[in-house]
Amino acid sequence: MHLPDLAAASPRIAVLGTGAWGTAFSKVLADAGHESLMWGRNAACVAEINDHHHNSARLPGFPLPPRVRATTDINEATEGADVIVVAVPAQSARDVLATIENAGPDTTWVSLMKGVELTTDQRMSEVIAEVTGAERERIVVVSGPNLAKEIAACQPTATVMACADAERAARVAALTVTDYFRPYTNTDVIGVELGGAVKNVIAIAVGMATGAGFGDNTKATLITRGLAEITRLALKLGADPKTMAGLAGMGDLVATCASPLSRNHTFGAHLGRGMSVSEAIAATGGTVEGVKSSRSVQHLARQLGVEMPLTDAVVAACYDGMDLHTMMRALLSRPHKDERR
Amino acid sequence: MHLPDLAAASPRIAVLGTGAWGTAFSKVLADAGHESLMWGRNAACVAEINDHHHNSARLPGFPLPPRVRATTDINEATEGADVIVVAVPAQSARDVLATIENAGPDTTWVSLMKGVELTTDQRMSEVIAEVTGAERERIVVVSGPNLAKEIAACQPTATVMACADAERAARVAALTVTDYFRPYTNTDVIGVELGGAVKNVIAIAVGMATGAGFGDNTKATLITRGLAEITRLALKLGADPKTMAGLAGMGDLVATCASPLSRNHTFGAHLGRGMSVSEAIAATGGTVEGVKSSRSVQHLARQLGVEMPLTDAVVAACYDGMDLHTMMRALLSRPHKDERR
Repeated sequence: MHLPDLAAASPRIAVLGTGAWGTAFSKVLADAGHESLMWGRNAACVAEINDHHHNSARLPGFPLPPRVRATTDINEATEGADVIVVAVPAQSARDVLATIENAGPDTTWVSLMKGVELTTDQRMSEVIAEVTGAERERIVVVSGPNLAKEIAACQPTATVMACADAERAARVAALTVTDYFRPYTNTDVIGVELGGAVKNVIAIAVGMATGAGFGDNTKATLITRGLAEITRLALKLGADPKTMAGLAGMGDLVATCASPLSRNHTFGAHLGRGMSVSEAIAATGGTVEGVKSSRSVQHLARQLGVEMPLTDAVVAACYDGMDLHTMMRALLSRPHKDERR
Repeated sequence: MHLPDLAAASPRIAVLGTGAWGTAFSKVLADAGHESLMWGRNAACVAEINDHHHNSARLPGFPLPPRVRATTDINEATEGADVIVVAVPAQSARDVLATIENAGPDTTWVSLMKGVELTTDQRMSEVIAEVTGAERERIVVVSGPNLAKEIAACQPTATVMACADAERAARVAALTVTDYFRPYTNTDVIGVELGGAVKNVIAIAVGMATGAGFGDNTKATLITRGLAEITRLALKLGADPKTMAGLAGMGDLVATCASPLSRNHTFGAHLGRGMSVSEAIAATGGTVEGVKSSRSVQHLARQLGVEMPLTDAVVAACYDGMDLHTMMRALLSRPHKDERR
């Protein structure tokens, strides 16, 4: 199979989405010496990136290198692109991808998205494959303990790039190597992608505990049980347990649950302090992937007969108005005489 | 084998050590309806517990129930004890245990200690067995995400009680059940004990990163790799991987690394901000188990041929004055093309 030389001086790179992570990823590409053309719907945001090298709504305070440019025309961004990075909200991915008319037969697709599609229960790489017709060997998924604002601040960060084709993952990884960004490769796409999707759900549960005033003992217990339930689901779908214990599983979950920068965690904390779901979404700002993904994850788990009590709790809190304290007490008092069972 | 009925109305319980965890554990026993007699060397501390129901040096702000009493005479504490809880610094355990003259042949020993003995590389249950002659079926080890001050504040907390004799573990567990303290049992003593010992070492490394100004991405990476190296060592010694992914492995590590209440984490943060080792120990107050345990863990790992780069780094920082930034960069740039290898 022909592989374009992505490590060449000037691969053409499109980045779809002007959220925090897409913008920070463009900055990483630029810091590694590569130009990118971002696409966003919001004309003011696009103009600000081009004219002021700043995305004040999503990544305030971080000047962007001039190598990062933007357009509101998605087909201008993707025209001739060797690499198309998709960083839109998970539930919008299908619609956005359907508007692309000019993707090449050899384009490498890179998903920065973390979520499961509500209507189909598909992972983001599956949505990309279905809409664009790309084979799985051309789709790379990126996940790990990657808080966008810390990456923008050049904090040392490791990430995982997974693709069925290890060589393709390595070529994308090579585009992002800087002294602060360390990409590792993996071929376990399912594990990497599920880790990233389900952790948003668990982060909401941990956020609720934080907001309700529970301490680090409780939070650590929820994080531990959260990873256990993510892992149960992932293994059922064929993932490698080592992936779940690695950066895209445990690493991402721990970073998300520790950080006040995570929107899912913040949203959960608002709920925990007594806000309604709509108030909490408004107060959080931006997309709260875990709210929507929770129902897809629950649906997937039920189909596969996997027990996911924290996910069930998040669905109950977000959609059924369950009382938080009752829920937390119930979660912590589940009868497990031997913790390994 | 005869088992004393520990769940009987009034088992005699000694708690050796008046540190934060021993004191909080006595409070849990009291809240569960059981009297205990603590032993401590410090006469003022003992008098304060008896006269003012308070341990202001180690657990300030938490009134102790009158069921918690104390003595400076260790053999008064252990006289006729059905259960002897050992909660002294790991490196003092052997000397303290050697002074007990009246332990019964059926006494249940409970270790709250987290560390590895420097001179012998023994785990705490091994030290108890060697000094007291107790069979392993009478030694229960307790570990988990158990920050003492949160337990004293009645924050919901899960813990693991492990013993080769599952029934013995369950009987000790039954002594501590309250609406905020949830003990689970396990028979994997090695895994539970190593998780507790090695996490203090990793917490120092994570603390150093915090103190040096690194963010949550970096910290989550260190926590993830830290658990991976704890797990490698534990598996080599015969532990169950599920224990390491559970409350006494991942749970305890995450709680310790998240919390400003952990002395090991705090000590590391002082180092990270540029203090010398002796300044950092002084500023932290209390015992910093991880400093001493780090060399035992490193020694054990080398004997077994297990790679433990974070432990090596902590030893280098604590004993060889290694420069922190150089060390962190080196840790984060280790060549791992595929993260699962």
